[in-house]
Amino acid sequence: MHISSLQNPAIKNVVKLSKSKERKEQQLFVIEGARELSLACAGSYQVESVYVFRDMFAKTKYPDVLARIDDSRIFDISQAVFQKIAYRENSDGIIAIAKPKLHSLDQLHVSENPFVIVLESVEKPGNLGAILRTADAAAVDALIVCDPQTDLYNPNVIRSSIGTIFTVQTAVCSSREALDWLEQHHIVSFAAELQASEFYHTVDFRSPSAIVMGTEADGLTHFWLQHTKKRIKIPMRGKIDSLNVSVSTAILTFEAMRQRGF
Amino acid sequence: MHISSLQNPAIKNVVKLSKSKERKEQQLFVIEGARELSLACAGSYQVESVYVFRDMFAKTKYPDVLARIDDSRIFDISQAVFQKIAYRENSDGIIAIAKPKLHSLDQLHVSENPFVIVLESVEKPGNLGAILRTADAAAVDALIVCDPQTDLYNPNVIRSSIGTIFTVQTAVCSSREALDWLEQHHIVSFAAELQASEFYHTVDFRSPSAIVMGTEADGLTHFWLQHTKKRIKIPMRGKIDSLNVSVSTAILTFEAMRQRGF
Repeated sequence: MHISSLQNPAIKNVVKLSKSKERKEQQLFVIEGARELSLACAGSYQVESVYVFRDMFAKTKYPDVLARIDDSRIFDISQAVFQKIAYRENSDGIIAIAKPKLHSLDQLHVSENPFVIVLESVEKPGNLGAILRTADAAAVDALIVCDPQTDLYNPNVIRSSIGTIFTVQTAVCSSREALDWLEQHHIVSFAAELQASEFYHTVDFRSPSAIVMGTEADGLTHFWLQHTKKRIKIPMRGKIDSLNVSVSTAILTFEAMRQRGF
Repeated sequence: MHISSLQNPAIKNVVKLSKSKERKEQQLFVIEGARELSLACAGSYQVESVYVFRDMFAKTKYPDVLARIDDSRIFDISQAVFQKIAYRENSDGIIAIAKPKLHSLDQLHVSENPFVIVLESVEKPGNLGAILRTADAAAVDALIVCDPQTDLYNPNVIRSSIGTIFTVQTAVCSSREALDWLEQHHIVSFAAELQASEFYHTVDFRSPSAIVMGTEADGLTHFWLQHTKKRIKIPMRGKIDSLNVSVSTAILTFEAMRQRGF
């Protein structure tokens, strides 16, 4: 089927889904880009419909992505329609609608000796996206996002994660639920904190461990500082005490992986 | 002096300086925020004029910043004028115009045993800003930016660096000049590259060292791959081979600092 009308209801709905409220109500979100869609398919996301602007899609590096989608769900669109619904540049001319996953803690499968990243109230989609890339690259067991201020399917999270949102096991829950889960799984939690007494590279991450990261502006809340087993810090030798939260998460994660022999 | 006219030429010029071309021609740039201005003053930047919206500035955590500025250069502005020239939220009601530094290689002062970060063609202001924060936190000797695709005084660089652009010794030059400078200073260069044979945590960063980072999209150019002493990689264990460039820079930098005992 070919869609060339900007008034097509399905097309108008793609635009609507750029809003968090609509994503929540409809339980749908938008995937832009052939690589991102490939990773979503590989991650068993349920794809509802795919809109393809063929002239642009002809140049993609991931032409096989459509082979995974039922023909009845693929719609060719005109350039004008594509421009109306495209949020990014370089999206390969392909935009899909898919169903979110549940992201419940119960569904996480962890290894014998897990390493987990816990984020409290992460604010910026770009930081969450960069942390997802780190979580993928380091092959951590899971990312737990507590009380997020941005939803996982925000287009900027998907874009900055370059699709790793679909490859990393991720749970969304309250801080209390995350703490209980860590304790049930006998995972030692390390709170990252500027005032900690221990340096991150002097602690032992080789047993089941989780790092718990707060916001850049305020750090971790009292809840986590009170309940985590250990507090650790990164040596700060500069004029200001501040690293980007995705950067500090990566420094701790890769030190843990180094200690574990990757 | 109080400025309430949106047509005031100085006010109109602040807006103009949001453009790279104007910054270059006028040799001036904009600093927004009291912390950023404090760091610029501490870094001996020459401040030409400061515009203050007093109602908002009253709440800053850095009230002392004005004490460093000659009274004749401080202008009170109305809320309407502030809103016209403010680029950010949370800028403390203070916006200044300052002169750029030269950022020449000759002016870099390095320690006995330097550690330097070299960036080739960095594209995104946010990544450059995050790398500046890392460079500050790790107290690296210098950051060398080769053939940048964004200028250092882009407002998004200043914002995302949260002022560390003013605290980190930074040179801007061609790749050829950077390589010559590293060789003159007997600094071993390590090119970060996905295809490298050595892992970053198995090399020795304790002697004079530089890490050389390419763009996320294309990595390093042939020039650097050919001329660097060693090539190193970060183990990638995920579904896709990709880390944010500010993240990989931080992983390498903090491993070097760990080896050096911070």
